[in-house]
Amino acid sequence: MLCLTGISELLTMPRGPRDASDPLGLVTDAALVIDAGRVHWLGPRGDLPRELAGIATQDLGGRVVLPGLVDPHTHLVFAGDRASDFEARCRGETYESIARRGGGIRTTVRATRAASFEALFEGARPRLTSLLEAGVTTVEIKSGYGLDVATELRQLGVIRALGRAGPQRVRATLLFHLMPEAYATDRPAGIAALSELMALAVSEGLADDVDVFCEEGAFAPHEADELLSAARAHGLAIKAHVDQRSATGFASRAAALGARSLEHLEQLDDAGIDAMAAAGTVAVLLPSASLFLGDAARPPVSRLRARGVPMALATDLNPGSSPTFDPWLVATLGCTWYGLTPFEALRGLTAEAARALGLEDGTGSLVAGGPADLCVARGARWQDLLYGLGHRPIAETWIGGQRVVRA
Amino acid sequence: MLCLTGISELLTMPRGPRDASDPLGLVTDAALVIDAGRVHWLGPRGDLPRELAGIATQDLGGRVVLPGLVDPHTHLVFAGDRASDFEARCRGETYESIARRGGGIRTTVRATRAASFEALFEGARPRLTSLLEAGVTTVEIKSGYGLDVATELRQLGVIRALGRAGPQRVRATLLFHLMPEAYATDRPAGIAALSELMALAVSEGLADDVDVFCEEGAFAPHEADELLSAARAHGLAIKAHVDQRSATGFASRAAALGARSLEHLEQLDDAGIDAMAAAGTVAVLLPSASLFLGDAARPPVSRLRARGVPMALATDLNPGSSPTFDPWLVATLGCTWYGLTPFEALRGLTAEAARALGLEDGTGSLVAGGPADLCVARGARWQDLLYGLGHRPIAETWIGGQRVVRA
Repeated sequence: MLCLTGISELLTMPRGPRDASDPLGLVTDAALVIDAGRVHWLGPRGDLPRELAGIATQDLGGRVVLPGLVDPHTHLVFAGDRASDFEARCRGETYESIARRGGGIRTTVRATRAASFEALFEGARPRLTSLLEAGVTTVEIKSGYGLDVATELRQLGVIRALGRAGPQRVRATLLFHLMPEAYATDRPAGIAALSELMALAVSEGLADDVDVFCEEGAFAPHEADELLSAARAHGLAIKAHVDQRSATGFASRAAALGARSLEHLEQLDDAGIDAMAAAGTVAVLLPSASLFLGDAARPPVSRLRARGVPMALATDLNPGSSPTFDPWLVATLGCTWYGLTPFEALRGLTAEAARALGLEDGTGSLVAGGPADLCVARGARWQDLLYGLGHRPIAETWIGGQRVVRA
Repeated sequence: MLCLTGISELLTMPRGPRDASDPLGLVTDAALVIDAGRVHWLGPRGDLPRELAGIATQDLGGRVVLPGLVDPHTHLVFAGDRASDFEARCRGETYESIARRGGGIRTTVRATRAASFEALFEGARPRLTSLLEAGVTTVEIKSGYGLDVATELRQLGVIRALGRAGPQRVRATLLFHLMPEAYATDRPAGIAALSELMALAVSEGLADDVDVFCEEGAFAPHEADELLSAARAHGLAIKAHVDQRSATGFASRAAALGARSLEHLEQLDDAGIDAMAAAGTVAVLLPSASLFLGDAARPPVSRLRARGVPMALATDLNPGSSPTFDPWLVATLGCTWYGLTPFEALRGLTAEAARALGLEDGTGSLVAGGPADLCVARGARWQDLLYGLGHRPIAETWIGGQRVVRA
């Protein structure tokens, strides 16, 4: 057992019914006791039970402690880069035009198909380390840069291997990103082939969830519906990239299918918001992708808030539209650019992000019995976590009660 | 003498007449010879003159070298912070409303007035170090958080002391930021008092330039005109914060007065662009301030480009609207959000930023006879300098031929 003290502010980030006046679950001058990788006790230091008074103590020196961050939307297993797409967009070419001429995602698909398991694994490790240094302890990673069976399964295998290698906890998502080129002229056959891929991934235990990119140039709503319905039939949780660049109207249908989360949502309509509210679907917002694409559209945050839709934040780490490793930059942009409150942004990185991944074991919060995944800030005030652009507020990251990063 | 080799790409960033097809002045597999703090020779490694063949050599291992960055617009000497303003804006309060109730800049004025010379100096040092680690070798710093004579002169004195302490080269600007509260009901008397402050600063050699914040709630165009005209009469270079939040129409007049640069410019009109083009005035763009304020307005980059107005980039480092130390984040946002090309963004951090400060000695470029101020990237391709959000591309910073930072 180890008792952490010197915690100026402990942000417990409660799930479930909670005090609306205290969304961070703030405890000042706190203590937190770790036992066997889990939180054994937490609360005001003065309330530490007598029987815990004699255990080993580590004084953090008066700093903020919060749950380890959860990044619920990344594409961090890939090969190659997209610097040339970036240049083309800076010259005025659109994301859609680049994609039509075979750039964009297909550039990354070509490089990823050509990369070995080991190359993909070694390429992903430093990206996970960058997230770890920022305080991220749980990461969702999607496939979707293979499109063919062999590469998609290899990519999912790499994601599973990254989870086994640790230290972060990893969730694997099978993403249907684009229609394979072989099926360009027979899309129904393509959907059938992708459904077979899904069955294979399920049988090999390689996917926790299924995601689909419903967008002009990717999958049409009726195709996305078919893929997600098949995923439901396999018992997998479902989600979708929806309404990023074009308004598809697919959010309502996806929520009705039971989507646990829907992502991007810059073009989301009111019917979609209502359906998400009714289904308890989490909105996963990705402001760094908007900005890196130079896209002025913003998701309807005030209407999502008014209807009680939970909002999470993610880096969307990927080589094309969000080459960033900084969830704090994402959170600050979530506030200044998307209009989240600081409370919403901090919950969006933690408790709501865990909800977006369906994690019900206390991940994303700090709660007795939950995992002792936490980060220690450089400063003493929670406000300083968000006040800055590119300022790196985290000093230490702990996973399962072990310190894995110290700045 | 020292010869740097192992330079995969040398970006010389030429000033004056140049090859439009090569705006970066790119030399591949280059060498650069330093002598007595200045660039002695540079060019393709194979062209190194025979008489330099025997000097000491340092191999950089195949990385990009570019001029030390110039940050032509900062407010980095201040006390206190503005986390509470940030929270208020996240709750929906506007920058202008916060200012009217005595928050905003006046919060920083109160803290800066209460701070000693030593406290201001020590507070500024780590901010300069953060910029140095990003490759910034020349920094402009403004006063403007005193408003009264004693504090403005103290702030300018701190700026001069920071320049003497080094290692960065520092330019001092007297900024007229807001009307002192004592003159709220007699603004003409306030302008007269500020003109006296200007004369004092000039007589003590504390200011290189004069800047004025022309904006609703700050100085009206006719007041800004009077202050800048007085500065011209003192022989100082002039510039202005113009058309950030409201369209004042002042850019035309400021350019006609001979302003060397005009800054922000989100609301700039065509007459202002024409006047800037005619006067050779540099547009200093500050995208991180737009984004931190959640302001969707963007300066008219394509029209500035079409009329040949030089464009520079700056961090605008300040506690209220741009708490950032990352010129690379600024440059990437300049591309993705403001629509600069990568060439324009890289020149905007270097050669055009030096032009905005009137530096004609080779600063902001790499040229024989100029200062050996440079930075060494982590990577081998110039594209990777801009391709990322929050990615810290610089490994080493050199000033006057000496390495002052090594990552």
